[in-house]
Amino acid sequence: MKVSAIGEFGLIERIRSILPRPHGALLGIGDDCAALRPTAGADLLLTTDLLVEGVDFTPQTTTPFRLGRKAMGVNLSDIAAMGGLPRAALITVAMPPDEEVEFVDELYRGLREEGARFGVEIIGGDVSASPALMIGVTLVGEVEAGRAVTRSGAKPGELIWVTGRLGAAAAGLVALRAGCRLRDDQVEIPLEVSGPLREAIGQTVERHLCPLPRIREGRALAEAGAASAMIDLSDGLASDLVHLCRESGVSATIREDQIPIDQGASAIAQHFGQEPLALALQGGEDFELLFTSSWEPADIAAIFPDAGTVTAIGTVGDAGHGCRLERHDGTAIALTGGYDHFRNE
Amino acid sequence: MKVSAIGEFGLIERIRSILPRPHGALLGIGDDCAALRPTAGADLLLTTDLLVEGVDFTPQTTTPFRLGRKAMGVNLSDIAAMGGLPRAALITVAMPPDEEVEFVDELYRGLREEGARFGVEIIGGDVSASPALMIGVTLVGEVEAGRAVTRSGAKPGELIWVTGRLGAAAAGLVALRAGCRLRDDQVEIPLEVSGPLREAIGQTVERHLCPLPRIREGRALAEAGAASAMIDLSDGLASDLVHLCRESGVSATIREDQIPIDQGASAIAQHFGQEPLALALQGGEDFELLFTSSWEPADIAAIFPDAGTVTAIGTVGDAGHGCRLERHDGTAIALTGGYDHFRNE
Repeated sequence: MKVSAIGEFGLIERIRSILPRPHGALLGIGDDCAALRPTAGADLLLTTDLLVEGVDFTPQTTTPFRLGRKAMGVNLSDIAAMGGLPRAALITVAMPPDEEVEFVDELYRGLREEGARFGVEIIGGDVSASPALMIGVTLVGEVEAGRAVTRSGAKPGELIWVTGRLGAAAAGLVALRAGCRLRDDQVEIPLEVSGPLREAIGQTVERHLCPLPRIREGRALAEAGAASAMIDLSDGLASDLVHLCRESGVSATIREDQIPIDQGASAIAQHFGQEPLALALQGGEDFELLFTSSWEPADIAAIFPDAGTVTAIGTVGDAGHGCRLERHDGTAIALTGGYDHFRNE
Repeated sequence: MKVSAIGEFGLIERIRSILPRPHGALLGIGDDCAALRPTAGADLLLTTDLLVEGVDFTPQTTTPFRLGRKAMGVNLSDIAAMGGLPRAALITVAMPPDEEVEFVDELYRGLREEGARFGVEIIGGDVSASPALMIGVTLVGEVEAGRAVTRSGAKPGELIWVTGRLGAAAAGLVALRAGCRLRDDQVEIPLEVSGPLREAIGQTVERHLCPLPRIREGRALAEAGAASAMIDLSDGLASDLVHLCRESGVSATIREDQIPIDQGASAIAQHFGQEPLALALQGGEDFELLFTSSWEPADIAAIFPDAGTVTAIGTVGDAGHGCRLERHDGTAIALTGGYDHFRNE
């Protein structure tokens, strides 16, 4: 059934029936505004991200459920990068009138499920007709007053850390571009590849389609007061490090031999003739956290007892020399660039 | 100059330079999230509305500055309809890479100016490439805890009120469809019309292009505790009255001879062979407030001493018989319908 057959108000009623009635918010869908009572002593965090068909995703390489999860996940990651706890979301969906209603159902189930994993209620939004499918999520989060971790607090001499391992999302995109597809909700690999590589493709494609927002890690850092600056890796390590350093007025040196590259990403890069490091540096969409800290490594490790949760990759320097990567051979290269919505298409 | 020439980050820097640094918010554009300290004892109001090229506007009949004002204004109206005070906005703009940078400048100037009229700071957002131009505004407002005026509080026996006069925005759209255009920021009227009608066309076109959000009136009602339910007239009096009654579980009877129709709208309707009442009932986009109250008319008038600010147009009834209009001749017709994004194109 097409969206045009049930109309705007029919669609809103249908969306309302998919979403649970909010219990944390005062007022959900169905009024001029949604309403929420702020937690006493908390600052509000607000973020919004838009996914556009043909720019940020192609319907051929994902499912509407995963698309919903991703649209929510990329915004959750922004809340994580401030050390915040997400609370509520507004969803805007613009789509052609001949979109299938079942597509919208699955999209909202994905949004709902990814939100629910982190305590987020969907309390409002807007639907509109448009020439192309677009999903906008606005997320409201909270953080203890004055404790939001910004991009601008890094100081010379501090260590630079990342959570997790990098390059998986970019490797998944490489695999999708090489012809891997989702069929019956499984990644289908039309290639002569070995068992371990098949597994790596499955995992990295899944990671590309559904980010894992680091809410828990961001909260732990904010609660401990350990991070002086933080950003999530949406554009790629190189580009996001440049952003953080520019906002902080500092430089940075990271070391190639310390960058934690995802094992599956390495295997996929090698199979498809790409450099693993390039996926980690320029790939983007890993949605890991990059942060700086004046704390000793042992004290950071005490926050994250599980080995591999965080890795020190370099140091903050004085303003002036930009961001650079020290290679295995001791040479250094300047880090720049990243994904640009209006240019790298 | 095209947006593609300066790229995503160049565009964000340009937008940042147009907007004043926020002083009411903790953190504006340039981080993973914006941050805001809530006013103690206030509830948060959240609303979002999307304007899509070819669906909600055509570049031929407006200017980018007015488009920015309207995108902000329709959201301000939602905050007004809850009795709230707007505080901060996130702006999402999706556009083709060959959009002119100057267009974006003017759009953000319009957003900034309309927001500033009501104390709203633009503190974040997103920009993305897309096949069509789209402007999404998410607005955060506040209202004294527990005092938000919802759509669901109307009770049988109460009076139904509207602010201002109706039909002007719809009459402006009639004039635009008849060939009136903006040129050098003036409404150009390529028609043989008299002086008073020319003036009416100018005023109603302006009203269609830039709504006048009733923040002051909404606040006065919330502060007095006078309104039991409220909604803003975005879809048209008929449709929005149906929405309010459905959420409240009541019926309504409004009287034709009490509906305040805009004088210019009446003149334009007559000139173009339309019924003035139809513009007021079905036209939409007046962005006046429709509210119900158990208060005596004299007590409502004491809140709004200026004559014509509010008009009683009917009464709330028991659930069951829906919404109806009593005509001059004593007959009654059922009220339904309104604009549907996915149907009435």
